[in-house]
Amino acid sequence: MKEARKEEQAKGISVKKEQDMPEWYSQVCLKSGLADYGPVKGTMVIRPRGYYIWQKIQDYFNSVIKKHRVENAYFPLFIPKSFFEKEAQHATGFKAEVAWIEQKEDGEKVALRPTSETIMYDSYSKWIRSYRDLPLRINQWCNIVRWEVSDCKLFLRSREFLWQEGHCVYETEKECDKEVLLFLDEYEKLCKELLALPVLKGKKTEKEKFAGAKYTTTIESLMPDGKALQCGTSHNLGQGFAKSFNISFLDKSGDKKLPWQSSWGFSTRLIGATVMTHSDDRGLVLPPKIAPLQIVIIPIFGDEKEKVEKKAKEILAKLKKYEIKLDNREDYTPGFKFNEYELSGVPLRIELGPRDIKNDSVVLVRRDNSEKKSVKIKDIEKEVDKILEDIHNSLYEKAKNYLNSNIKKAKDWKEFMKVIENRQIALVNFCGDSSCEDNIKYDSGGAGSRLIKEDGSGKCFKCGKPAKQLVYFAKSY
Amino acid sequence: MKEARKEEQAKGISVKKEQDMPEWYSQVCLKSGLADYGPVKGTMVIRPRGYYIWQKIQDYFNSVIKKHRVENAYFPLFIPKSFFEKEAQHATGFKAEVAWIEQKEDGEKVALRPTSETIMYDSYSKWIRSYRDLPLRINQWCNIVRWEVSDCKLFLRSREFLWQEGHCVYETEKECDKEVLLFLDEYEKLCKELLALPVLKGKKTEKEKFAGAKYTTTIESLMPDGKALQCGTSHNLGQGFAKSFNISFLDKSGDKKLPWQSSWGFSTRLIGATVMTHSDDRGLVLPPKIAPLQIVIIPIFGDEKEKVEKKAKEILAKLKKYEIKLDNREDYTPGFKFNEYELSGVPLRIELGPRDIKNDSVVLVRRDNSEKKSVKIKDIEKEVDKILEDIHNSLYEKAKNYLNSNIKKAKDWKEFMKVIENRQIALVNFCGDSSCEDNIKYDSGGAGSRLIKEDGSGKCFKCGKPAKQLVYFAKSY
Repeated sequence: MKEARKEEQAKGISVKKEQDMPEWYSQVCLKSGLADYGPVKGTMVIRPRGYYIWQKIQDYFNSVIKKHRVENAYFPLFIPKSFFEKEAQHATGFKAEVAWIEQKEDGEKVALRPTSETIMYDSYSKWIRSYRDLPLRINQWCNIVRWEVSDCKLFLRSREFLWQEGHCVYETEKECDKEVLLFLDEYEKLCKELLALPVLKGKKTEKEKFAGAKYTTTIESLMPDGKALQCGTSHNLGQGFAKSFNISFLDKSGDKKLPWQSSWGFSTRLIGATVMTHSDDRGLVLPPKIAPLQIVIIPIFGDEKEKVEKKAKEILAKLKKYEIKLDNREDYTPGFKFNEYELSGVPLRIELGPRDIKNDSVVLVRRDNSEKKSVKIKDIEKEVDKILEDIHNSLYEKAKNYLNSNIKKAKDWKEFMKVIENRQIALVNFCGDSSCEDNIKYDSGGAGSRLIKEDGSGKCFKCGKPAKQLVYFAKSY
Repeated sequence: MKEARKEEQAKGISVKKEQDMPEWYSQVCLKSGLADYGPVKGTMVIRPRGYYIWQKIQDYFNSVIKKHRVENAYFPLFIPKSFFEKEAQHATGFKAEVAWIEQKEDGEKVALRPTSETIMYDSYSKWIRSYRDLPLRINQWCNIVRWEVSDCKLFLRSREFLWQEGHCVYETEKECDKEVLLFLDEYEKLCKELLALPVLKGKKTEKEKFAGAKYTTTIESLMPDGKALQCGTSHNLGQGFAKSFNISFLDKSGDKKLPWQSSWGFSTRLIGATVMTHSDDRGLVLPPKIAPLQIVIIPIFGDEKEKVEKKAKEILAKLKKYEIKLDNREDYTPGFKFNEYELSGVPLRIELGPRDIKNDSVVLVRRDNSEKKSVKIKDIEKEVDKILEDIHNSLYEKAKNYLNSNIKKAKDWKEFMKVIENRQIALVNFCGDSSCEDNIKYDSGGAGSRLIKEDGSGKCFKCGKPAKQLVYFAKSY
C-alpha cells in the first residue's frame, strides 16, 4: 500500500509555472489525466478527463449552431490531389502540411484532410442548384491532419487534432459578411461563458489571412508566457472557391450566379488555452462548467466515522445535480486526497468532520484561490451555486486583467521591441503590407500580427509609410 | 419555376425494392438526402439527414455507457507498423485492409487505424498499475479506415466509416465474460428501441471470430434481399493482447497478474440496416425516434388560405415537442409535397383543409402503411403520441415477422442449398470446424455462418462428423 501511495504522491507538478512554462504545462496535462503522448511522433491521446471537456464544448456549440440553422454532416477524410490544385492560394497554403496515402493501385494520389473546404465544396457543387437551396449551412466535427508537426504540444499543436468546421453558402456578400461575424461572436461567447477565457476579436492582416479567403477574422487569447494563441477563426471566402469548384445557383429571375462562402472553425486547442490560462503550481484549475468532477466531498472521520459518513451521504444526495463524488477511502489521509483533487482540478472541495457536524455546517474550499468558507448544511445548495458561479467569474476577470494589462501601445521600433521582450502584446500603427510584416517578424525574432484593432493613423512604426491599421503584434503559438 | 419542379419530381425512386434491391437502396439513400458518394473510390459523404440519425444513435448510446461507467476518449488515427506485429492473429486478420502513410522522413511506417486495439492497449500498458485502476472502461467515437473496399455501398461498406469502439480491462475472466454480454445486450436493445430493428444474438463460430479474440459475440439482422448483416460485435479478447502489449496489474496481495480484455463496436452501418429494412418503393421509411423531421403539416388552402394557415400554426405550436415543420409553400401542390415527404421518410403527415377545420379536425397520414385517420384537434397531442409509438412498434413487428419466417431448419446439404437459394437463413447442425466451414462457403457460393444458436446434436449437415453447434448460415453483406 505504502509503495503505491508514494508513487502517487510523486505525481505532483515538479516545476513552477513561472519557472518553466512548457514543462509545467505538459506536466499539468499529463498528471491531471487530461492527455498523453501518442506513439507516433507528433500525436496525442485525449484521455477521458480531457475528452469530457471536448464533449462539453461540443454540447454547448451544437445548441448554438442549431439555433442558427446549421446542420452537422460528415465528409471523407480522403481528398484527391487534384482538389488542392483548384484553388491556387489554398493549394500553396497547405502544401507543406499534407499527408498522403501510400498508393496500392494506379490512379490519383489521395491526401488526408488538412481542412475540408475542397472536399465539401465538390459536394456543394452537386447539391446547389437554385436560390431555394441557399443559404446552405453545414458543420462537421472531425479529425484533421497536419503532418508537418513533429513535436507535439498537448492540445496546442499535434499532427492530428479534433475540430469543428462550419461551411456556409449564401446568395449575397452581405449575408456572408453578417454571418462571418455572427459565428465569430459565438466563439467569443463560448470562450467567455463556458471556458472563462477572455479574447481579442477582429480581422487578420492580409499576410495572416486563411489561404484562399477574402478576409479572415479571429479570436486570440494571451497565454501566461506572453504568447498569443489563436482560438478560432471565421473566414469570408468570397467567391473564389465557388468559381474553382463550379458552385453556382439560379437566382429568382432565373439568372446563373456565383454564391458567397464562409468557413469557421475552432479545435481541441481551446482545451489547451483554458488549461494554460487558469492552472497553477498545484496543477489543473478548470472553470466549473467544464470540470469532469465539479465537487468532491472529503470526510474527516475523527472517531465518528459512521456519523460523518452518514452526513456526507446526505450532502451528496442534496447536490446530485452536480458532477460530485464522495471520497471515503480509508487508506488515504485527507491531506493526500486534497492534493490529488487539487492536481486534477476539481473546482470545489467539501470537508466535513465531527466538529463541523456538531455545528450543522461544512467547510467549502475553492480550488482557484484556496478560500475556505464554513456554511450551514441547510444553506449548502444555495452556497454551492453561488461559489461555482463566482469561481467562473473570478477566473474570467483574473485572465481579463492579465490580458488588458499586457497590451502596450508602441510608437516606434524601440518601444515595440521592449514590449515584445517583456512578453506582452504591442499595439502599433502599421502600414498593412505583407512584406513589411515579414520584416517585423524576422527582425523581432518571431513577433507577428495577431489582429487589427481598428483603422490606423500616422506612420507605420516599422517602415514609416502611412499607417492603415492599428494592429496587435505578439509572439504566438 | 416549372423547370425546377420537374427536376424535383424526377427525384422519385425509379426501381422497385423487389426488382433491383442494390439500385433501389442506393436511390433511397441518395434521393432522400441521407448520403452521397465521395470523390475518392470507396468513400461516402454523410449528409445532414443521415448524420442526424448517427447523432441520435450517439446520444442514446452515450447515455447507456455512462450508466455502465464507460468514459469516452480519443486515441490517434496513426498506428506504428510494429504494433500490428505484436499480436500475431490480429496482424494477419487486418493485413489486407490497412492504408499506410507515404513516408516523408526516415523511421517506422505508419498506418491508419482499421481498429484501435493496438494503439489503445499501448496506452493502457502505461496507465494500468494496480487492481485499483480496474475495471478500466473506455469508448471512442471515431473514423475507421479499411482500404480494401473500393466499391462503396452507402453506409454498408466504405473505405472510411464512423463507429464506436469500447475497450475494457478487467481483473477476472468472469467480469469480462459478463460485460461482453452486457454490451451485446445493450446493442440488441438499441436496435429494438431506437431503430425498430430485430436481430439474432449469439456467439460467432471459430472461423468468424475477431482476429485476436478468445471468442466473438454478434447481433445480426436479415436484410430484405435475404442477406444477413452484422450489426455489432462484442469480443472477449482473453489475455492475448495484454501479454503482447505488456498490460499487467498488481492484485490485492501484491502479485503481478495479466488482466482480461473486451472490445465491442457498432458503426454507421446500423443506419444502412435501418434504411434497407423499413423503406419502400416510395422512398425512405424511418422509425420516428430517429427521424430528422417527425411530422410535417401540409395545409390544403382551398379558398380559405388565411383561416387554414392560422389553424396550421396553432397545431404547429401544440406539437412543438416534436421535430415538426409547417410547409406552406404556395408554388407547390399538396400532392407534390406528399411525394416529397414520403421520399424523405417523414413518419407522420398532418393534412388540413377548410372542411377539416369546419369539423375541428385534421387528417393524420402514416408514412409506414399509408393509413389515414381523422382526429379532433383537441385530441391531437394524445393521438400523435400514440400513432408515432404505434409506427415504431409496427415497423419492428413487421421486420421481426420477416426475420422469423425466413429462418428454416435444414437437415442436409440439399435442404441447406434450397434455403440459401431461397434467400433465407438456414439453421443447421454443424461440426464447428473452420475447414468444413470453408467448404460450405465455397460450395454454396458464399453462405457463411452468422452465429451459434445453441449446442448441436446428431451429425454435421455437411461433413457428417458429430455436430457441436446449431448454427445460422446465410449469405451476408
